[in-house]
Amino acid sequence: MTGSDKTQEPRVDKITPLDSSEAKWAELVKIDWTDQAGKPRVWETANRKTRGSSGVDAVAIAAILLHPSRPTCTMVIKQYRPAVGATCVEFPAGLVDEGETVEQAALRELKEETGYTGKIVSITPTIVSDPGLTTANMQFAVVEVDLKEDELPEQHLDSGEFIERFIVPLNSLYDKLMEFSKDKNTICDARLFHFVAGMHFAKENAKKYGLEASDSKI
Amino acid sequence: MTGSDKTQEPRVDKITPLDSSEAKWAELVKIDWTDQAGKPRVWETANRKTRGSSGVDAVAIAAILLHPSRPTCTMVIKQYRPAVGATCVEFPAGLVDEGETVEQAALRELKEETGYTGKIVSITPTIVSDPGLTTANMQFAVVEVDLKEDELPEQHLDSGEFIERFIVPLNSLYDKLMEFSKDKNTICDARLFHFVAGMHFAKENAKKYGLEASDSKI
Repeated sequence: MTGSDKTQEPRVDKITPLDSSEAKWAELVKIDWTDQAGKPRVWETANRKTRGSSGVDAVAIAAILLHPSRPTCTMVIKQYRPAVGATCVEFPAGLVDEGETVEQAALRELKEETGYTGKIVSITPTIVSDPGLTTANMQFAVVEVDLKEDELPEQHLDSGEFIERFIVPLNSLYDKLMEFSKDKNTICDARLFHFVAGMHFAKENAKKYGLEASDSKI
Repeated sequence: MTGSDKTQEPRVDKITPLDSSEAKWAELVKIDWTDQAGKPRVWETANRKTRGSSGVDAVAIAAILLHPSRPTCTMVIKQYRPAVGATCVEFPAGLVDEGETVEQAALRELKEETGYTGKIVSITPTIVSDPGLTTANMQFAVVEVDLKEDELPEQHLDSGEFIERFIVPLNSLYDKLMEFSKDKNTICDARLFHFVAGMHFAKENAKKYGLEASDSKI
């Protein structure tokens, strides 16, 4: 972090119980449900209060930065997350605003976070982040950005926003996440880590597990 | 679902606000924190109340089922999740019990869920499931299971547990998740989906993005 107005390490000062009626962003609810055998049961769940008419809370973006002469890169961000009292490494992401589609939110977030304009090459169905505990859902978009020769994928730093951006070659992203994780004050987002672990797994075990690349068959 | 004592579709009957003091498994908290510029701020977060001395809430397992003459498979489970009011597709997973290591929990869960005994070939650092909303954290283990020729990876169904297990070749897991997602009452876990999307991404784009398999270099 080199934001010019950073004066100190962020810290958690106090954690106190919060009543749902006083909360602005989140709430705790009790779900009475009936199971497959007809038995009444109870589940405790946390919700976001912010979900709009898209029905999807958030979108995360893997920006694929294609450069004519440099390795293909992506961007991850580091930001302090009070919930976990640590700096988190995540894909760029944001909540879907009321009135916009998830695809629009993905391209807006990318533009805001990086200045880049890209095209969506894939987007997942709606998926749920932690369905044993929360209702939170999301979609994950892969967005290609075609860079020109003199357009280097550079790190943007906004002072005041306290978000650090890292441009990392796709081929070394797994090693980078493992390196980040060695710092006791830094923790990776599970969704980012699973995507990168999946890439790494496919690369490392292509022959052993019969996962040969589709585009190398010619 | 073919559990013998299933009599009906599960359903959510009622959702009511829940006070943290009355909740057994989860709580809502207000975090007072100080940002990098020294400004006092507030964040709302949900916690699990069940975290033990391991410091890790849960473990998920990719079981790699190695058979002498069949394609390498893994197992995913489908279970109704009241939080999202839908059937979720997930990797086998469970909470870490007090007094056990995360590795022990992974092998215990695998044994309970599948009857198989495996060996852990990799386990992630601690990662966070949705750090904008909750403190929930986890580790993700890849476990190899060596099957004998006559030991077919078969689906186990426990009546009463209402968990359906699917043995799926690794090579077709992405297509299977996309197929599951087409059912409006079925939704995939984001972490499972990201892992599988990462595998698929690496396979589909190996040449284009310079992600050639490490074990195919000879």
